[in-house]
Amino acid sequence: MVGIGNALVDVIASAEEVFLLEQGLVKGSMTLIETERAVELYAALDGAVEMSGGSAANTMCGIASFGGRAGYIGKVNGDDLGDVFGHDMRAVGVTFHRPPGKHTTPTGRCVVVVTPDAERTMNTYLGVSSFLGVDDLDESAIADSSVVYMEGYLYDRPAAKEAFRQAAHIAHENDGLVALTLSDSFCVDRHRSDFRALVQDRVDLLFGNHDELLALYELDSFDASVAALRDECEFAVITTGAAGCIIVTPDELIEVPAVHVEKVIDTTGAGDLFASGFLYGLVSGRDLAECGRIGAVAAAEVISHVGPRPLVQLNSLLGDG
Amino acid sequence: MVGIGNALVDVIASAEEVFLLEQGLVKGSMTLIETERAVELYAALDGAVEMSGGSAANTMCGIASFGGRAGYIGKVNGDDLGDVFGHDMRAVGVTFHRPPGKHTTPTGRCVVVVTPDAERTMNTYLGVSSFLGVDDLDESAIADSSVVYMEGYLYDRPAAKEAFRQAAHIAHENDGLVALTLSDSFCVDRHRSDFRALVQDRVDLLFGNHDELLALYELDSFDASVAALRDECEFAVITTGAAGCIIVTPDELIEVPAVHVEKVIDTTGAGDLFASGFLYGLVSGRDLAECGRIGAVAAAEVISHVGPRPLVQLNSLLGDG
Repeated sequence: MVGIGNALVDVIASAEEVFLLEQGLVKGSMTLIETERAVELYAALDGAVEMSGGSAANTMCGIASFGGRAGYIGKVNGDDLGDVFGHDMRAVGVTFHRPPGKHTTPTGRCVVVVTPDAERTMNTYLGVSSFLGVDDLDESAIADSSVVYMEGYLYDRPAAKEAFRQAAHIAHENDGLVALTLSDSFCVDRHRSDFRALVQDRVDLLFGNHDELLALYELDSFDASVAALRDECEFAVITTGAAGCIIVTPDELIEVPAVHVEKVIDTTGAGDLFASGFLYGLVSGRDLAECGRIGAVAAAEVISHVGPRPLVQLNSLLGDG
Repeated sequence: MVGIGNALVDVIASAEEVFLLEQGLVKGSMTLIETERAVELYAALDGAVEMSGGSAANTMCGIASFGGRAGYIGKVNGDDLGDVFGHDMRAVGVTFHRPPGKHTTPTGRCVVVVTPDAERTMNTYLGVSSFLGVDDLDESAIADSSVVYMEGYLYDRPAAKEAFRQAAHIAHENDGLVALTLSDSFCVDRHRSDFRALVQDRVDLLFGNHDELLALYELDSFDASVAALRDECEFAVITTGAAGCIIVTPDELIEVPAVHVEKVIDTTGAGDLFASGFLYGLVSGRDLAECGRIGAVAAAEVISHVGPRPLVQLNSLLGDG
């Protein structure tokens, strides 16, 4: 499996609800910010912890943690944070297909504000990560993968959109499955028609949450959105927060409950790790309900602690030897 | 109060005991490493978390967390990790008297390996932090402080030794108290005669643990070491791990028990935060036993979680507000 996304280091800090108000932040959302705002916001926060993140990168780390083979394509600079990002991928066994070339733009970073209710509000300075283009794709890595997993977050600049389409093309030429996560409802709002076209033309398996699905089809009803989705993409997994997930196939809706967590500490990475478990189940030949359960196990682990990546070997949580 | 020390960012990773053996590391020690070894060790570790650290810097953060006024003098580069360090000091309210000038040597970092028994083994690449000299001292910050707190870790290069003596001189000229922490028994072994001379000539309050005290006087007995210490420095606090601490005055030995911790997660910062509590007690006019208790409260907080700095406002733990 190979993931393609924005290579980011997360800067995680706790703050009270009032901090979101003061800073004009919408809880639970992801906002793209420029350097100046990143500096301002960072300065306003208390002591922070730096940990590698990036949505698709987190998912690939989850795959590796389950024992699956995973690679990753994303752009970093040769600065400290770029070194940190590369280290953390290799350390968990993900092959990092780092695009060659030198850059002056710094490694991207995501300032994650965690409120006492464990919700995370993300402010992302994309840095060099957003300059991913067709030339940065490691074609053989994509051709050799059974699944290419791409994040909607990356789907912003024209060059990245082109890279998405090209990666999907290479995957299909080599009998690979193309998976996409919608990432964020604001992200879907910004690029709705392009997303719709991408889903219709190129995507075999769509990940998203309830809000993102409704945003994609500009509908108020979940059932109507599912009907619209089925016309365009035959296979999707919609996460529904604490309720679990709904797996959408041409003729079935399979509901899988979430795994109970004693105390939710930080929801960063919940969707990313859910996808890792689902995809790991899929490539290891489990039935769809079991894929959903494995996704729920991975999501439960990651929301039990600070940080977007698992702190234990996920395969040790499956209880099936 | 002002602290002077090696400005470091901690890179914290968990590893099994066998990792220490494979890498030839002595558990619980601090080893100075060069760039090459830092790269090698970092590559061998699993996913890591980056958090600001540095012994005296942790102590100053503790002082601020208790509500005391604290400043810090230490050298960083203008790189990502230098920015992280400066941010985290300011965020908790410590005034960072950053020496001016540009450097090509990177910001120092300490690779902390945490084993399942919560012990930490530290490998420090000092980077630019070790180049602190007399010119880097903010004289007015030192003159305005009631206590100057210095870490033995910094006491390595001739320029830093000179800076130590100069800082102590300025403090004494301005009726300030000079406090020193011995930091590490290997550190004491390397510079024993210089440390002895420093303690005798300039130090008013010495912090150290049991092993460091024995190393300073090359003695096997704690009682004999205390007697030797009393000839050279009238006032000291010796921590004794889970037993607590012993406060040494010219005519008393005051034993203060540790504060019980349900589960010790990571002992990084235990001594640093103990010192912060003790010093905060001292400058706020508490008696010595109460200073020891406040030190124990701060140490208990920091060993209950990953990372060398408090995660809560320490004054909220004193129960006398």
